[in-house]
Amino acid sequence: MATRETQKLILDTAIELFNEHGTKAISTNRIADDCGLSRGNLHYHFRSKEEIIQTIFQRIDMEMNESWYEDHSTHTLAHANYMFERQMDLCWRFRFFYRELIALLQNDARLKILFLDSRHKRVREVKDYIVGLIENDLMVHPRLPITLDSLLLSSWLVTDQWLPHLDMYDISASDENAISEGAVLILNIFRPFFTEKALAELEEMDTASN
Amino acid sequence: MATRETQKLILDTAIELFNEHGTKAISTNRIADDCGLSRGNLHYHFRSKEEIIQTIFQRIDMEMNESWYEDHSTHTLAHANYMFERQMDLCWRFRFFYRELIALLQNDARLKILFLDSRHKRVREVKDYIVGLIENDLMVHPRLPITLDSLLLSSWLVTDQWLPHLDMYDISASDENAISEGAVLILNIFRPFFTEKALAELEEMDTASN
Repeated sequence: MATRETQKLILDTAIELFNEHGTKAISTNRIADDCGLSRGNLHYHFRSKEEIIQTIFQRIDMEMNESWYEDHSTHTLAHANYMFERQMDLCWRFRFFYRELIALLQNDARLKILFLDSRHKRVREVKDYIVGLIENDLMVHPRLPITLDSLLLSSWLVTDQWLPHLDMYDISASDENAISEGAVLILNIFRPFFTEKALAELEEMDTASN
Repeated sequence: MATRETQKLILDTAIELFNEHGTKAISTNRIADDCGLSRGNLHYHFRSKEEIIQTIFQRIDMEMNESWYEDHSTHTLAHANYMFERQMDLCWRFRFFYRELIALLQNDARLKILFLDSRHKRVREVKDYIVGLIENDLMVHPRLPITLDSLLLSSWLVTDQWLPHLDMYDISASDENAISEGAVLILNIFRPFFTEKALAELEEMDTASN
């Protein structure tokens, strides 16, 4: 196999094992075995489990960047809703990462830097997106003491916590409703600031999907 | 020492050590050593680390129940704000528990039952409290698709996630502002539904505290 294919196989296998069993229970040897690779071969590509997790996070980050490229000029509520659902879906596909987020960042200074860089960038981008909704008369600017930043912060906290919340109640997020319920929860944080024009657009969306 | 005093010493010491180092790094032997007790004496009171953590959670739950007894008839926004701050303060004092919440519940079925029982009760109580605010003309009932349940769920998710969020940015929640900022974030989730009467009450609060 070419280097690129081998690395993809290792990462795909690691994601599957981590999602199923958590990162603590899975050694690099187990990943090599499941890939049908020698342990030496795996270590040639990735020196440690930390490096595998960092590379997986870079994949998450790249996926977010690629989608943002399509997003940043599409200021409709249908698209906002799609963005929230897409983010929840990403959290589900890489669920080990979001489940163990705090512990992973505490244990790996480099991962923490990668994550915070990415998060700062995303927070700015989503803020720009919301400002775009305001400029397109779909949302009004909240009045103090509510700020755009406080709405955005709440929406990130709810997004990060949604999967652990489902876990707690033994609800599987493979259930499609679970993802869309999370997205509705996020949309509802912004909803009090939607204009009549926006609400009419949303009603049309609901009618179309029924 | 009387049994009760010894148990209190063990729990207080365990909370301090868990908050500082996490539950994984602290053995029951370490707790015994820090208490100046023999290991056998500690095991006479608590058979395992799990039992210590369960007993600490029962203390958390009892504290929440006691405060609720004062709350349930005080329907003012000043009191609502105080309740949110008090909950954040409790999350800070028992921060190991909220930091490790998902992992702790995954590893201990009995703790999970204790926690979910307590959470269900609290969710109902806070919902009753919010209904009281509506009945006292301080808040309007949200209109579909926003529901009281969705507001309450968002507020719990933000509350649970606030400390891990501070951790991530290396902000200490011992900083008093950090707690009150968290409480403002929670209050802001409900704020779009506050009445003019409520907003006037809040303005008075702000003037009084400046």
